[in-house]
Amino acid sequence: MELSDLTVRSFFELLGSGAPAPGGGAAAAVGGALGAALAEMVCSLTVGRTQYAEFQEDAAAAREKSAALRADFLDAMQQDADAFNRFSATMNLPAKTADEKAARAAELQQALTLCITAPLRMMELSLEAIDLVDRLPGKTNAAAVSDLGVAALMLGAAAQSAWMNVRINLGSLENAQQAAAYRAAGEALLSRTLARSRAVCRQVYGVL
Amino acid sequence: MELSDLTVRSFFELLGSGAPAPGGGAAAAVGGALGAALAEMVCSLTVGRTQYAEFQEDAAAAREKSAALRADFLDAMQQDADAFNRFSATMNLPAKTADEKAARAAELQQALTLCITAPLRMMELSLEAIDLVDRLPGKTNAAAVSDLGVAALMLGAAAQSAWMNVRINLGSLENAQQAAAYRAAGEALLSRTLARSRAVCRQVYGVL
Repeated sequence: MELSDLTVRSFFELLGSGAPAPGGGAAAAVGGALGAALAEMVCSLTVGRTQYAEFQEDAAAAREKSAALRADFLDAMQQDADAFNRFSATMNLPAKTADEKAARAAELQQALTLCITAPLRMMELSLEAIDLVDRLPGKTNAAAVSDLGVAALMLGAAAQSAWMNVRINLGSLENAQQAAAYRAAGEALLSRTLARSRAVCRQVYGVL
Repeated sequence: MELSDLTVRSFFELLGSGAPAPGGGAAAAVGGALGAALAEMVCSLTVGRTQYAEFQEDAAAAREKSAALRADFLDAMQQDADAFNRFSATMNLPAKTADEKAARAAELQQALTLCITAPLRMMELSLEAIDLVDRLPGKTNAAAVSDLGVAALMLGAAAQSAWMNVRINLGSLENAQQAAAYRAAGEALLSRTLARSRAVCRQVYGVL
């Protein structure tokens, strides 16, 4: 069963348990999905309203894009959980002979790579989503402006959370060149996302 | 049906829609629940492990407390959605006669008060939860230290998100004395929670 098919209550019970997944990576994805869904909601509350007539086309396009990002975040949540479950499972692989040890080490590095690329994907999605949110204040339903602020906060937290997940796994990656590339990519995504998240929050606080 | 009984996927579809609730308040509560559940998870991964023998009692107590906070956040989510649905419903109340107008205005203020106290409650829960998380680094499973960082990030985002929801509603509250009291309470909760959230993040980045 996919995590998205659990009830909200069951998802949180499983998150709180000692099960290998879901964990912090899934939480990052949920934070991102909150941000994308709130952007979608604000667009939904704008499309078809006569006082926002001049922004109809933009709002409809942003609604469609944010709905896709919401689904992408839930997919990334599942990918992260699958990667961590695969990583955990390597601990139970046989490692008596030299061949077994080598096979286990290789599988561990492959699973670890997925435990890095899944949260990096969430960071890419967070940047895409905050770029979208950044264009909405002043062009969408003013009664929902605080929701754009919450979207920005959640996307900022999602990016930082995903980055912590990348960071904790990078140290165990044996391919140093690959690790450096992931690190550089993550740092660039994080700084851009946080700058935009803070800019949206400042705009929202300015009108609250 | 309560929001917690929806599947994760359906919850996010509803959040993205133009339905009055759930909205930013519910998103704040989900962020808080993520933080509480991750604290609970880290304690679950500590209880019963011999290398953390000296912290068993603290970890077991923190696990119980964070599980309760996780449930409290989901209750607060429902209360916020109920409050906002009640607020939205006042728009459909009759307001032709002077009596009807007065009754509608009174109901609006009551509903508005609940739209303020529900996110304020989330802010109280966020402070309780970050106080708990703040005591866990160094005393819980080191393999899950990034999850404590994610918990701190999510609780910080939850408090700020709840505060934006308080702020957008405060302006419409007619009782100025009450509004000032809510504002002061929220500001105090927010600054304490954010300071502790940042302190935990610094600690976590220090060991990543």
